[in-house]
Order: sequence, then structure tokens, then C-alpha cells
Amino acid sequence: MALKGRLLLVPSPLDFGGGDTLPDIRQALPHGALEAAAGLHHWVVENARTARAVLKRVGAVVPLAAPLQQLSIVELPRPPKGRPAQPAPDLRALLQPALQGHDVGLMSEAGMPAVADPGAALVAAAHALDIAVRPLPGPSALLLALAASGLNGQSFAFNGYLPVDAAERAARIRELEALSRRAAQAQLLIETPYRNEAMLAALLATLQGGTRLSVSCGLTLQQEWTRSDTVARWRVQPRALPADVPAVFVLQA
Amino acid sequence: MALKGRLLLVPSPLDFGGGDTLPDIRQALPHGALEAAAGLHHWVVENARTARAVLKRVGAVVPLAAPLQQLSIVELPRPPKGRPAQPAPDLRALLQPALQGHDVGLMSEAGMPAVADPGAALVAAAHALDIAVRPLPGPSALLLALAASGLNGQSFAFNGYLPVDAAERAARIRELEALSRRAAQAQLLIETPYRNEAMLAALLATLQGGTRLSVSCGLTLQQEWTRSDTVARWRVQPRALPADVPAVFVLQA
Repeated sequence: MALKGRLLLVPSPLDFGGGDTLPDIRQALPHGALEAAAGLHHWVVENARTARAVLKRVGAVVPLAAPLQQLSIVELPRPPKGRPAQPAPDLRALLQPALQGHDVGLMSEAGMPAVADPGAALVAAAHALDIAVRPLPGPSALLLALAASGLNGQSFAFNGYLPVDAAERAARIRELEALSRRAAQAQLLIETPYRNEAMLAALLATLQGGTRLSVSCGLTLQQEWTRSDTVARWRVQPRALPADVPAVFVLQA
Repeated sequence: MALKGRLLLVPSPLDFGGGDTLPDIRQALPHGALEAAAGLHHWVVENARTARAVLKRVGAVVPLAAPLQQLSIVELPRPPKGRPAQPAPDLRALLQPALQGHDVGLMSEAGMPAVADPGAALVAAAHALDIAVRPLPGPSALLLALAASGLNGQSFAFNGYLPVDAAERAARIRELEALSRRAAQAQLLIETPYRNEAMLAALLATLQGGTRLSVSCGLTLQQEWTRSDTVARWRVQPRALPADVPAVFVLQA
């Protein structure tokens, strides 16, 4: 029996759609990860177009093992948003190359696949098939935002997206604030960029003045900034959030 | 008034104390982070000896701005273990160079500073002094382990260390399992390496058979592995954990 290939989890830069002048990919990924990515012939990705653009940038630094057009790049089926990923039998077909001895790369739109991004179901399928899983270091907006917040890095939770309905959203914010106070736990949230401003407004309208709120915008990009302050001071001195750059929100009561 | 310097959060490799043959630091850190680290004259670190060893490895790839002996390397005061970090007034002295216009680097023992590692209080002090905080991408054992687990990357919590007392520990494990079931939330835990085996034994003795448990050992190291399976199958087919390599535990009910 041939030795199985591995599933490599390859992080991607956080600058997808981030403007005309993309930074050198060596700003985001370690050389080791670039070498590993450049060596792969088989990919499963969230979005083939983005993945090809990233691989082109990888190839500018480390020559790809084969021309871009000759790589096998297959898209993940889209999972229902906000639901926990579950292994699905048809994902096993995507891992066929690994069963035949070839390493397979998993890449999502931005940051670490399978964390606040699709891919967990494919990783679960790999474990079920006894395929070794190897995550490569790289950028993760959640972790960068948490580190930059100065809030509790010893206890934190990521809660994904909030409900869109205003009343449900406010209720959920109050619930997370209470949980944060009870467990001294920092609470991380994300939002679609065009709703960044609405999210900030909802947080400032709902949270108590003494609760701390950190917002990180455009992490790893030229225009990156993080502001961490009490809600009371955010209200007095607001800061506009861009509608086209991802933001991460961290609160702690 | 001189322009303020920034506080750069510089991740370190996960191989501290990891054996005789340390991998090339370019396996762990992006070239951009290595360049940023090499350019700094002022450091605040968890452990000066480790930080010097890391900077020596950085210098082998990107020449340091000044010889190692001439860098200012100050250690963080040790925070009480397991407690949330709070800004302390005396940390402001450590940021004096930034107030005078110099960038300051923050580095912890392994991975991202201020996440499951000291440093959050210094970051909070920087925000209080209106010093810009910039986190640099690099390895984080928590995020790598979560991605490699195939468990819920859309909702997860990190809970730090469990109580050492056996009864308290079992109670806390049951509490986290119930929380995981209720909120479909993956729960991350770490332990001091020499207690890895005791931790695994406690998890297998306490969790229900259908709960999923993922263990990642030696992430980014040569001997790295991740096993993700149900508790029932872990019990039938146990796997020994090394006592000298960090492990991350992820459970989901």
C-alpha cells in the first residue's frame, strides 16, 4: 500500500480584495509555509480565483512545482453560514489524492482555514480517513486582534457573527457582556465589512460604559489600526470604521 | 513633540526547549516579522534568555540593527498564573522608549505574546498611553491546534489551565463538556508538558464516549502530530503523550 499524503492547512494573507498594491506575501507567510505551498499539486480551497491569485504571489517567491494551470484546484462545497461544520461523506472524494500518496493543500479566503473560515469538515474527513493533518503557521485575524486588544488572552471565546435583526442582536450583545463579566472572558466577534459601522453602533448603544471594547481594522495591511478603550470613551470619541476592510471586535466587561 | 514609537507584538517559534536541532526560524516567522524584529533596539520580554536565543536566530537570517549585547531587553513582571491580566501603572516605565519615539518589541516564550502567554497588561498600558500597537503574524499553538482538530472553528473558547486537584478538575471538565454541547462550542485547553499524560487520562475518564477530543503535540516541530477522534475510540486506542513537548487539547460534545 502506498504511503498516504498529508492534508496541509495553508494560511493565506489577510489582504484579499484589499486594494491595488498588495504587500509582498513574505510579510504574511513564513518561508517554510511558502515552500510547502509551492510544492503542492493538489488543492482544496474556499475560492479558486483567490487561491490562484495567492499561489501566483507564492510562485513569485518560491517557484511552484508545476505551472498554475496544471495544478488541481477544487472548491469546497459552501457550508451553511453560522452552523458548526460536520463531516460530510462527499468530502472524502476531495481527499482522494492524499489516499494515493499526494499531499493536499487546504486554503481559505483569508487567514487560517477551518478557523472562522470554511474547511473544518474537510479536516474532520481527513482524520476519519487517517490522513495526517499539518497546520502551517501564518496570519489569523482573530489571534492578532486578541493580542492587540490588551484584553484577556488567558480566557477568550470567538462567537462568529451576531444576528442581523436589531433586537436579537442587542440581546446577544447583552448576553455576551454578561458572560464576559461572569467568566472574565474576552469575547471576539466579526462582521461583514459593509456592516462594520452598524456593528460598532450596536455595541456602543448596548454595552455598559465601563466595558472595554477593542476594534482592529485591516490587520497586517498598510492602513491597520487597533483601538482599545472603554465604551464610555468610545462614545465620546468615536472612530469611523472602513466599509471595505475586515474588522475584529473584542469586548470584555 | 517627537512622534511616538509603536509596540510591536512579535511571535516567537514554538520550539523553545524543543531539543538540540532547532528548525530554521524562517519555518515559523514571515520574513516581514523577522525584518521588523531585527530592526528593534528595545524589547520587553517574558524571558530574557529565550528572547536572546530567538534574536540570535533572527540575526542569522536578517542582520540585527545592533549587536545582541547592545539591545535593551527588559523582562515583564510575572503575573499571577491563571488570573486575567490587568494594566499596572509600573508597566508604563517599560514603554518609556516608545514615548521617546522608538519602537518597542514584545516577545513571550512561545507563540503570540498576550495570548495564552504574558503581555496583555503591557498592551493595555500601551493603549492607555496612546501608543500604537501592531501585532505581527506568526505561529500560535492554539489556532494551529484548533484548525488541525476539525472541530468547530466558527465558535470556540480557550480556557487556559484546569485546576490541579483531581475532583475540581473533573468537575471543570464536565462543565466544559456541558457548555460545549449547549453552545456547539469547541473548548481549548493547555497543560504543562509534564502533566500532559495526567490531563489526557482525566479527559478520557471524565468525558462521555461520544464527545470528540483532539490532541495536538509538538506543533511546528519535527515530531508534530494531531489526533482527533471520539473519546470512546481514544479509550480503545490510546496514544502516549510526550512529557517534554507542549500539547493543546480541544474537545467538543
